[in-house]
Amino acid sequence: MAKKAKCSERHTLLLTNDDGIHAMGLCALYEALKADFDVYVVAPEAERSAVGHAITLVDPLRVKSIKRNGRHFGWAINGTPADCVKLAVHEIVKDKIDFVVSGINIGANVGINILYSGTVSAATEAAMLGIPAMAISLNTLKDPDFCTTAYIAPRLVRWAIELGLPKGIALNVNVPAGPPNSIKGMKWVKQGLSPYKEQFDKRIDPRGNVYYWQASQEILHKEADDIDSVALNKDYITVTPIKYDLTAYEYLDKFDFPSCF
Amino acid sequence: MAKKAKCSERHTLLLTNDDGIHAMGLCALYEALKADFDVYVVAPEAERSAVGHAITLVDPLRVKSIKRNGRHFGWAINGTPADCVKLAVHEIVKDKIDFVVSGINIGANVGINILYSGTVSAATEAAMLGIPAMAISLNTLKDPDFCTTAYIAPRLVRWAIELGLPKGIALNVNVPAGPPNSIKGMKWVKQGLSPYKEQFDKRIDPRGNVYYWQASQEILHKEADDIDSVALNKDYITVTPIKYDLTAYEYLDKFDFPSCF
Repeated sequence: MAKKAKCSERHTLLLTNDDGIHAMGLCALYEALKADFDVYVVAPEAERSAVGHAITLVDPLRVKSIKRNGRHFGWAINGTPADCVKLAVHEIVKDKIDFVVSGINIGANVGINILYSGTVSAATEAAMLGIPAMAISLNTLKDPDFCTTAYIAPRLVRWAIELGLPKGIALNVNVPAGPPNSIKGMKWVKQGLSPYKEQFDKRIDPRGNVYYWQASQEILHKEADDIDSVALNKDYITVTPIKYDLTAYEYLDKFDFPSCF
Repeated sequence: MAKKAKCSERHTLLLTNDDGIHAMGLCALYEALKADFDVYVVAPEAERSAVGHAITLVDPLRVKSIKRNGRHFGWAINGTPADCVKLAVHEIVKDKIDFVVSGINIGANVGINILYSGTVSAATEAAMLGIPAMAISLNTLKDPDFCTTAYIAPRLVRWAIELGLPKGIALNVNVPAGPPNSIKGMKWVKQGLSPYKEQFDKRIDPRGNVYYWQASQEILHKEADDIDSVALNKDYITVTPIKYDLTAYEYLDKFDFPSCF
């Protein structure tokens, strides 16, 4: 366990996302957090959804100051969410960052889809750099109302800081889209592992060439109540502790190797 | 455990990578595998290194037939390694794919860097789709000699198919760069979790603007012999069983939530 923080300290947060620095979800989170925390915003200059844990090695990264209402708001990067966290930690933010918050993402980040999520990968990247972090996503794709999420976010962040997250662990938080009185509570849940039924939409462009859209996804199996997507759709705020250790320990040394030489 | 395959069957492989369909490593692997397996090549049209588990949602995907020596060699996709696996499985390859091989990557994929690796993510994507898979990387960045890796690859693939990898598991294989007689053997190893000392190289472009390169990485802690990078640098072929379940089970239900409402 990390050392527990004192309640009275004013903490420094890094705020990022994958929807880009101009996204409403990030703005709502900034407004909700700025009273209680010193908030630095470092986020992609444009939407970088579904980029997973991509980083930028073959192109140079540039940092642009972004203003809102005539004042400096944050830094926009021509890179991915993971790039933003790295560049913020190593170059941009001179203060010690106590906690990284990624979001508010439009759309849940649950199940195997968290592997594709830039929002979640920003939090994982922070954990890899030794900084506790939280990804926050809202379970809707249309007409998002960030009020409930913005209301709980400072409370959740303060709770996680005071708790002292274990080293290398980030929290993946998903919030139901309904009003506060429809929310049944908070729940620790596992990442769902069920496969999805995936489809590609095959089309012909005006020049007669075939192209594909990644299209609908439909979950193939019924899952239990302690799985992220299930609890979220039953109006619980879901919290999954996630790590970046991909080793499947149960299969280490389990099988003999072939004779190759 | 998956059902064990019979030795005598001719199996269908999907071959992909993140260095692009024209990369020498993929070509070497194709030449090594084509005698024993039915090999379909579906790979990015250009290098997509360090894209992690990114997928393409906001742009359409296109498929282009690529010829080598006047004959069809494979399909190039304007997307990521994970896109290639999805599109191959759902649209391009009409046969049942028995196994997915991703590589040969130039440069080791070990430690926390496997989170950024397109090569590894292609194998993970296959595992998510229920297909056993292997990522193969060569531990050099300069003047790669693929001979040793190409020699062992068909043996390793046949071994993994006959073994029947557990559902949801992919193998991350790294091969030392030296000649066969310098290789000490094969070893099951864990993914290293040590942080790296990272640096950004700050430069000024000819127009006076600042830009950054993600630059050198240096491992911060000494690690044990059963860690991927350590065993690889001691001339072992390393094999890590990896999964896509990010849940840190040891921290589920461990902490009480704050009172938010």
